[in-house]
Amino acid sequence: MGRKSHGRLSISASRQPRSLMDEPPHIKGAWTAKIVTLFPDAFPGTLGLSLLGKARELGLWALETIDLRPFGIGKHHNVDDTPAGGGAGMVLRADVVGAALAQARIGTPQDRTLWPVVYLSPRGAPLTQAMAQRYAQAEGMTLLCGRFEGVDERVLEQFGIEEVSIGDFVLTGGEVAAQVLIDATVRLIPGVLGNAESAVEESHSNGLLEHPQYTKPAEWEGCAIPEVLMSGHHGRIEKWRHEMSEALTRTRRPDLWAQYLQKQGKSGDGEA
Amino acid sequence: MGRKSHGRLSISASRQPRSLMDEPPHIKGAWTAKIVTLFPDAFPGTLGLSLLGKARELGLWALETIDLRPFGIGKHHNVDDTPAGGGAGMVLRADVVGAALAQARIGTPQDRTLWPVVYLSPRGAPLTQAMAQRYAQAEGMTLLCGRFEGVDERVLEQFGIEEVSIGDFVLTGGEVAAQVLIDATVRLIPGVLGNAESAVEESHSNGLLEHPQYTKPAEWEGCAIPEVLMSGHHGRIEKWRHEMSEALTRTRRPDLWAQYLQKQGKSGDGEA
Repeated sequence: MGRKSHGRLSISASRQPRSLMDEPPHIKGAWTAKIVTLFPDAFPGTLGLSLLGKARELGLWALETIDLRPFGIGKHHNVDDTPAGGGAGMVLRADVVGAALAQARIGTPQDRTLWPVVYLSPRGAPLTQAMAQRYAQAEGMTLLCGRFEGVDERVLEQFGIEEVSIGDFVLTGGEVAAQVLIDATVRLIPGVLGNAESAVEESHSNGLLEHPQYTKPAEWEGCAIPEVLMSGHHGRIEKWRHEMSEALTRTRRPDLWAQYLQKQGKSGDGEA
Repeated sequence: MGRKSHGRLSISASRQPRSLMDEPPHIKGAWTAKIVTLFPDAFPGTLGLSLLGKARELGLWALETIDLRPFGIGKHHNVDDTPAGGGAGMVLRADVVGAALAQARIGTPQDRTLWPVVYLSPRGAPLTQAMAQRYAQAEGMTLLCGRFEGVDERVLEQFGIEEVSIGDFVLTGGEVAAQVLIDATVRLIPGVLGNAESAVEESHSNGLLEHPQYTKPAEWEGCAIPEVLMSGHHGRIEKWRHEMSEALTRTRRPDLWAQYLQKQGKSGDGEA
């Protein structure tokens, strides 16, 4: 049985995607995410797809998971305990998380500009594109994924941890938030996106929501592509797109619209 | 080889986690997420972990992926084309996405309150806890994950699609955003969280950031748990926690702090 199944494995191996065959190459100096988590199997997850997955296979960035469980206390490797002062839920222990973060720290710069250490938490600063740009300029970063009620505050202070939130909603754990942060960051690393995709990004950076997009077929279910887009008149198309972007932003995101007006030196309506 | 490998499979099967053996049960009436995506393998991903994964195995919620690729056009099943009017990137075709959404629609209520249809997009309304609560009260929902530059506007209009953004940052695709939205939603479905976790949530709903948490050991690396938490004096502990929550919110999230003050009937500082 052993021989036969081995034989079968070696035949099918060549038809498997590279990521299932072996780990991607870790090129020295490549941007690296170190992730402290109770669920290392959750990675790469969505980070293994498409452009990010290909970039990882090429060694343009690297991913390292540090399983929190082996750092747990006692026979059952407990990682959490009840909150001091009472209350519901469980809190991740400072000694357990501290030991895992100490391992993650090995070989990384102490300077938090060069190597940010982030705890994904609803208490954190809301993630922005500017933060993703800052992280992308570092050599890499360490991400701590929480579960349960939170993490002992002392370890957050001791390790100079930055708390980051991906939004004002509650998640069951930090793993999916870490994937969001890494996705937003890694796509900004030079070479990760193709030229076409990089160019697309430029068009997002004017502080307005994206105008509507259309593609073939010219007519679908009785709806035609707006005539202006078929005109071939570059100036009219640009003007239409800009007006649509402004209208969408004004309607959907009054907060972004106010910021946009401020940048333009106009005053927003409804404000004294 | 066939016989032997079958025999081996049936032996190892009993040692595999249930999720690898077969699909979780689909209990009639369970909240269901239908996901239209080019990467069905990305699911359940982080949604298979811990409490959400267990709840799915118990049939408390269900997940169905609809692969966009087979709906593609021609020999290569193309799903996208260049933007009408020019520009960088590629746009998902209305006819392709429409056919996938039509399949997703089978057996679902037409009323968008009972069955929201959401496109994850940076142009959308920012996801909030209140939106997650609304989705959790539906019978289920359909999520469209974008890639490339966007989706043909006509299909968004035709299907009455709600655009939702998980934050002001750019992602390579909607799959991780869909996992965030589903995580935030499913944990609100009755029975998904244990009693302890449900109780925790109550403490988040006062509009303030969570106070610092501590647990054993009482002293770690020269840092002691704040004395008040060890006092056993319930009133003093509550007061300290509330003050810490207020201080954190004021410092880290002036926007939430302003909303909180407004609710309390106090006026914010720095505003006339």
